Amino acid sequence: MKYVSFLSDTGPGVGVVLGEHVFPVPHGYSVSADGAPLGLLELIQRGAPTSVPCATPPIALADVRLLAPIPRPARNVICVGQNYHQHSLEFDASGYNSTPSNGVPDRPVVFTKAPSSVIGPDDVIPLHDALTTELDYEAELGVIIGTGGRGIPAEEALSHVWGYTIINDVTARDVQRDHRQWFLGKSLDGSCPMGPFAVTADEVDLTDLLVETRVNGELRQSAKTGDLIFDVPTLIATISAGMTLQPGDVIATGTPAGVGIGFDPPRFLRAGDTVEVSITGLGTLTNTVGGPPGTDPGERA
Amino acid sequence: MKYVSFLSDTGPGVGVVLGEHVFPVPHGYSVSADGAPLGLLELIQRGAPTSVPCATPPIALADVRLLAPIPRPARNVICVGQNYHQHSLEFDASGYNSTPSNGVPDRPVVFTKAPSSVIGPDDVIPLHDALTTELDYEAELGVIIGTGGRGIPAEEALSHVWGYTIINDVTARDVQRDHRQWFLGKSLDGSCPMGPFAVTADEVDLTDLLVETRVNGELRQSAKTGDLIFDVPTLIATISAGMTLQPGDVIATGTPAGVGIGFDPPRFLRAGDTVEVSITGLGTLTNTVGGPPGTDPGERA
Repeated sequence: MKYVSFLSDTGPGVGVVLGEHVFPVPHGYSVSADGAPLGLLELIQRGAPTSVPCATPPIALADVRLLAPIPRPARNVICVGQNYHQHSLEFDASGYNSTPSNGVPDRPVVFTKAPSSVIGPDDVIPLHDALTTELDYEAELGVIIGTGGRGIPAEEALSHVWGYTIINDVTARDVQRDHRQWFLGKSLDGSCPMGPFAVTADEVDLTDLLVETRVNGELRQSAKTGDLIFDVPTLIATISAGMTLQPGDVIATGTPAGVGIGFDPPRFLRAGDTVEVSITGLGTLTNTVGGPPGTDPGERA
Repeated sequence: MKYVSFLSDTGPGVGVVLGEHVFPVPHGYSVSADGAPLGLLELIQRGAPTSVPCATPPIALADVRLLAPIPRPARNVICVGQNYHQHSLEFDASGYNSTPSNGVPDRPVVFTKAPSSVIGPDDVIPLHDALTTELDYEAELGVIIGTGGRGIPAEEALSHVWGYTIINDVTARDVQRDHRQWFLGKSLDGSCPMGPFAVTADEVDLTDLLVETRVNGELRQSAKTGDLIFDVPTLIATISAGMTLQPGDVIATGTPAGVGIGFDPPRFLRAGDTVEVSITGLGTLTNTVGGPPGTDPGERA
């Protein structure tokens, strides 16, 4: 099933996509204490089945505005760095890696992005040009945890996965490098486009998903998830070894070669650029790059 | 005012401490969608005044179990590394710093701890001995944000502070080093003791707070907040430059010299150790080190 979080004429909702329609899930939507939409998160936290009866009439997909499937995660998005061989080499060679690995890391490199950085499909990625001149894209497979746990063995890890989505791990390279730990450079407002769908695990075969990025139509990244240095079960086992994973946690699994700093000279994002990230079976996540935060119509708060 | 989150015979609550009593704040307490207690968080998110009428009768402090003031932050605890001169030098010299700064960093080093790592006063710090043999303590002043914002200038930053608390940024040094980015080594379950009080900003003079740690009664860390490389206003300005700070965000401002890896040979925490962190006006945060997670009575889930 393909889930979406959306805004329609009657307000926010969660639904299942079939063809060109969204079938709303009753009571599927609420907001957090600070007023942020929770989208699919509460359904997953309540242990929602991956098949939900849809009682209300469908809405045309064209008539809704899609949000990130989980517009405001309950804690930071858990991210993995240098997890494709060729990207790991290009990053070390770029001079931007404050924690170089001499090629390929022998353990997963794990950092986080703030929940406030999450935006949805077609939302504007703010340029933050007062803070960075080196904004970059990173196409990533996102894993959504369904059943939490600590000490999850790799061989059982996939049974803890609720589903998958697309994440663009937008990164301010200068900020990432200059502050050495990557959190700030990864957490600018609007730097975590997510979506358009959250596809349940039963519909996804992890072995050979194609991950691609196009900037203004030009193919920049193209790799198969089979090239991951640490595969999804290994990541779940490593992350949960000492930290309890929770339903609704999102893990961004790392990006392939072809990011902006992989080019010489680097090719950073500019105002007006369109970035499309596609993954087999998960659709295409499209965002444009805008002006300074707060200046673009339709930009998410 | 000194706020506490607590459990009493009648359930969870939030209150104000006066002498040896807690005056409960009506409707001050709720739980999140995933069942975690929110403590003071929702009060701060709703813009609670720093002086609250306390209608219900007081409870003796001795009759409640104190929780962390914010038992489950709405996103990861924002942490600053290498923010005292002498500690920055001891950390670089220790061989455990995967992002060495050649002495003193020229920009704040910012990473996060998972909200699930937060525990309260007198809770047991799990040893995680299957995962680490190098558990270490870090006494830190914690800043609680009251009014959010992006691009907060340093000169206005203190008006965004709700109050202060004590944080022990417990760290698995081997995990921190081996995964290069620090998140995993900083986020083991139970590795973020917080409390006992959240003291409102009007009662705290930041200029010269004494930060001290004792392990089994032996003084290990002792420094004044005046020694901070990046002071609280600078940290708030830096962190909020591109990322909107939110009410209830917690910022751990860094630890002074005297952590376990500052000794030769290093002095790591062992089962049965008692760690006391004291800060002028904020009380003392005491925790013992226990066995593997899940094995200690009274340990927080």
